[in-house]
Amino acid sequence: MRTINYIENMEQWRSEFTFHIPVKVRFSETDMYGHVNNVSPFIYFEEARIDYIKHTGLLTDMASKDGAVIVADLQCDYLQQIYFSEKLKMYVKTHSVGNSSFELHYMAIKDNGEIALTGRGRMVYFNPQTGRPQPLSESKKKLLVKN
Amino acid sequence: MRTINYIENMEQWRSEFTFHIPVKVRFSETDMYGHVNNVSPFIYFEEARIDYIKHTGLLTDMASKDGAVIVADLQCDYLQQIYFSEKLKMYVKTHSVGNSSFELHYMAIKDNGEIALTGRGRMVYFNPQTGRPQPLSESKKKLLVKN
Amino acid sequence: MRTINYIENMEQWRSEFTFHIPVKVRFSETDMYGHVNNVSPFIYFEEARIDYIKHTGLLTDMASKDGAVIVADLQCDYLQQIYFSEKLKMYVKTHSVGNSSFELHYMAIKDNGEIALTGRGRMVYFNPQTGRPQPLSESKKKLLVKN
Amino acid sequence: MRTINYIENMEQWRSEFTFHIPVKVRFSETDMYGHVNNVSPFIYFEEARIDYIKHTGLLTDMASKDGAVIVADLQCDYLQQIYFSEKLKMYVKTHSVGNSSFELHYMAIKDNGEIALTGRGRMVYFNPQTGRPQPLSESKKKLLVKN
Repeated sequence: MRTINYIENMEQWRSEFTFHIPVKVRFSETDMYGHVNNVSPFIYFEEARIDYIKHTGLLTDMASKDGAVIVADLQCDYLQQIYFSEKLKMYVKTHSVGNSSFELHYMAIKDNGEIALTGRGRMVYFNPQTGRPQPLSESKKKLLVKN
Repeated sequence: MRTINYIENMEQWRSEFTFHIPVKVRFSETDMYGHVNNVSPFIYFEEARIDYIKHTGLLTDMASKDGAVIVADLQCDYLQQIYFSEKLKMYVKTHSVGNSSFELHYMAIKDNGEIALTGRGRMVYFNPQTGRPQPLSESKKKLLVKN
Repeated sequence: MRTINYIENMEQWRSEFTFHIPVKVRFSETDMYGHVNNVSPFIYFEEARIDYIKHTGLLTDMASKDGAVIVADLQCDYLQQIYFSEKLKMYVKTHSVGNSSFELHYMAIKDNGEIALTGRGRMVYFNPQTGRPQPLSESKKKLLVKN
Repeated sequence: MRTINYIENMEQWRSEFTFHIPVKVRFSETDMYGHVNNVSPFIYFEEARIDYIKHTGLLTDMASKDGAVIVADLQCDYLQQIYFSEKLKMYVKTHSVGNSSFELHYMAIKDNGEIALTGRGRMVYFNPQTGRPQPLSESKKKLLVKN
């Protein structure tokens, strides 16, 4: 398996995920190459990320005025072709937490247990009223770390 | 050519279009059948519709507080397969204008001059502050009819 | 409720649906108006349609060489705004069966039981090797009618 | 400006791009936050990438049997919010060329000259008949380097 610069030890990295959502690949997410288009995994990442963030309790409402999160960057490694109607387990975990940002990691698992996709991306916590990043309180940091 | 219930005479219908935008088919808009996915034409319809409505002068700003338009229904007839990197002319015209709504017709033409898609859909003019339909003034109706 | 030309009696029409799939609205399916973009329902229609066609037994494999279906036209009526993270029941039924084509009807129901979307569209049954429409056998017609 | 690990010197990095395509942001590419959804830039990357690869002469036909390219990974940094109907210049350049793969860099520029997006991703050159990576000939490497 190839080297991915945000994964030190694949077995350990994989074992640290617990939260996931089911994803069923739609026909409209394929392309003329016959498999899932390279844009589609970012749709899956987003769906899983939002559910994960609700799950942690960091945000319960995506339209809250107290705090919001924004994607600073996103990265996806395509390890296996994915085909129409496949069922994936789309995992998300917190990799690290900074002052006003945190990094999430992503992993999509096929029915046969193989890793189809890995990914990562930094999220910024900000104040929707000022549009500026705001610090994550210690209690909010804990919500992210323990999930 | 098959019968389409919103087109009486295809030659005349076609000749009444003047406004169009160029559309270049993207790879991500195809599917595993090798051609454009049946969802994608509605992306083209929307892009052309918004440009058309700006062109008429009915709305100059999609976020205006004075008036807005909403799609009540949409219909697309797929007359020809469309393939990756094809260039289409996506036409829009006003078919009819009612009290607080109007009907737009759509036509996509291939490079060889053949009709790839036809479509129609009713738009409702409404007040974004009340969320209720509002009448189109005579001057607004004229903007739609002459374009 | 407004008149929809492919629905004679809404109560009866609604009661004739039995097959449905669950749809959870994704963030990426919304637009800057704050609700589901008008393109997105056609993604839901496609997902439900393919599952329905497999369910009937007409096609068990979307890549079969014996027979395939293609969308001739599609129509959607937007009865209610739909919002991020809503859960819909997306219903499909066979409305009528012709010689080498059939018409499907669509209905999306909100959690509160209200109809959010209705739709219809004609499908053509064709031979993927010749690219030409082919007749539906009596046994295939029965599969569609009873589901 | 924040640190991006694939860009050493932003001014120099920016000056090395020459190839670009125009992108006009579509309404369906926005989301309920009012700006471009974080999935949409990958649509732009793909469109620009394919046009760039044709431009270099590496592949003239995306369905060629002699050679094809596949995305190994993709990364996007979101530097600025992007809004509906904005016009972007979407740039692509070859960053480096390996034995059977190469890395592309991406940059989206706003009308005001500011950088909205940066990105990168590794492409693998492979034989569509065997499905295995195949070496890039010296002449093919030159096509990539000089563009």
